[in-house]
Amino acid sequence: MRIDIITVVPDLLKSPFEASILKRAIEKGHVEIHLHNLRDYVTDNYKQIDDYQFGGGAGMVMMVEPIDKCISRLKAERDYDEVIYMTPDGERLQQKMANQISMYENIIILCGHYKGVDQRARDHFITREISIGDYVLSGGELGAAVLCDAVIRLIPGVLGNETSALTDSFQDNLLAPPVYTRPAEYNGWEVPGILTSGNFPKIEEWREEQAYLRTRNLRPDLLKEDEK
Amino acid sequence: MRIDIITVVPDLLKSPFEASILKRAIEKGHVEIHLHNLRDYVTDNYKQIDDYQFGGGAGMVMMVEPIDKCISRLKAERDYDEVIYMTPDGERLQQKMANQISMYENIIILCGHYKGVDQRARDHFITREISIGDYVLSGGELGAAVLCDAVIRLIPGVLGNETSALTDSFQDNLLAPPVYTRPAEYNGWEVPGILTSGNFPKIEEWREEQAYLRTRNLRPDLLKEDEK
Repeated sequence: MRIDIITVVPDLLKSPFEASILKRAIEKGHVEIHLHNLRDYVTDNYKQIDDYQFGGGAGMVMMVEPIDKCISRLKAERDYDEVIYMTPDGERLQQKMANQISMYENIIILCGHYKGVDQRARDHFITREISIGDYVLSGGELGAAVLCDAVIRLIPGVLGNETSALTDSFQDNLLAPPVYTRPAEYNGWEVPGILTSGNFPKIEEWREEQAYLRTRNLRPDLLKEDEK
Repeated sequence: MRIDIITVVPDLLKSPFEASILKRAIEKGHVEIHLHNLRDYVTDNYKQIDDYQFGGGAGMVMMVEPIDKCISRLKAERDYDEVIYMTPDGERLQQKMANQISMYENIIILCGHYKGVDQRARDHFITREISIGDYVLSGGELGAAVLCDAVIRLIPGVLGNETSALTDSFQDNLLAPPVYTRPAEYNGWEVPGILTSGNFPKIEEWREEQAYLRTRNLRPDLLKEDEK
């Protein structure tokens, strides 16, 4: 999979791809990440990337021309499955969407910054708008990093143990059950006896029950989704 | 505001705090970010931070002792408003929660990694569990960065123009209206005439209408929330 990320602050995105699972996924060749600095696509001498809003108001808006130039150049080189814009008014990212995107070959992710991008860039170049949640961030960069992380870890071979992602929260509309590790007793707090019983069918039963109870208590909406 | 972030991969968190708005907020003294490497709180020679799950199954679990040591040391030094754990089964972050957290003095954010942390750490040290959305990430680090960004930009003085955050999506349960900047015509695509009319009361009316229409089309659930 190849991911092209277009941003005005590429520096912000460096470390998430240089550590842990994403780093290893890149090193193993499961994914290529290309950061594009939108300033490289500006023609004027001031490297101006944004301008005041038409109609007045606080916050700068990213101009359409450099976005057009950058996306057009990438699209001339290869076909893309989606050109994604990270925005709080987009479709909300959830696990099923991450599963779907993890099967793509090439995607572009455009990160807005400041007050967002000129609406014409969204209307004419973007095929999908995605939000990571109902809150506002300084820019789309962290959203892009979150999307990449959610997607890349699902590519077969990226996680050391493939079953690990399958038992994550949301894969079956259930939250994950509680987990425990050594020591069996710490500070007087004990691990549930069932987990040290060695009775694996019972342990599986307990985990399913705990996953169900946790979901019912914390996120009953997920169970309703399942009934649909 | 002081934010202590506890993680096993502090490197992952570097660049988001070294660029753009978060960098300036730190430089201006609006916020202090302290990254704590959980490995510094391990006593054995192998610097072991995680172990297999009790009861079997894929994925490593972060041990309770180093978490206890790190949090206890921080709490001995000052009072904290919340000790937050980033987890997909937590309360979902939304803008109102970010507003509330932006008024705190000191918070701790614990980032899980691998399969999560020993449930006893959650039961005994965590005061609030927060999720940035219904998807699974490699660890809590990007979630912590998202939470910090959403919160820090709301601290008065952080954004150049304070009204900028007030007109963001979600602050009034409405999505933001479309924005446009120069040129007025690009590639034959024109800016809506009203925005270049100079009639500011009409422009405000148009923006409110657009915000309402966009919300009704894309996120009718937000309007229902408003009626509650």
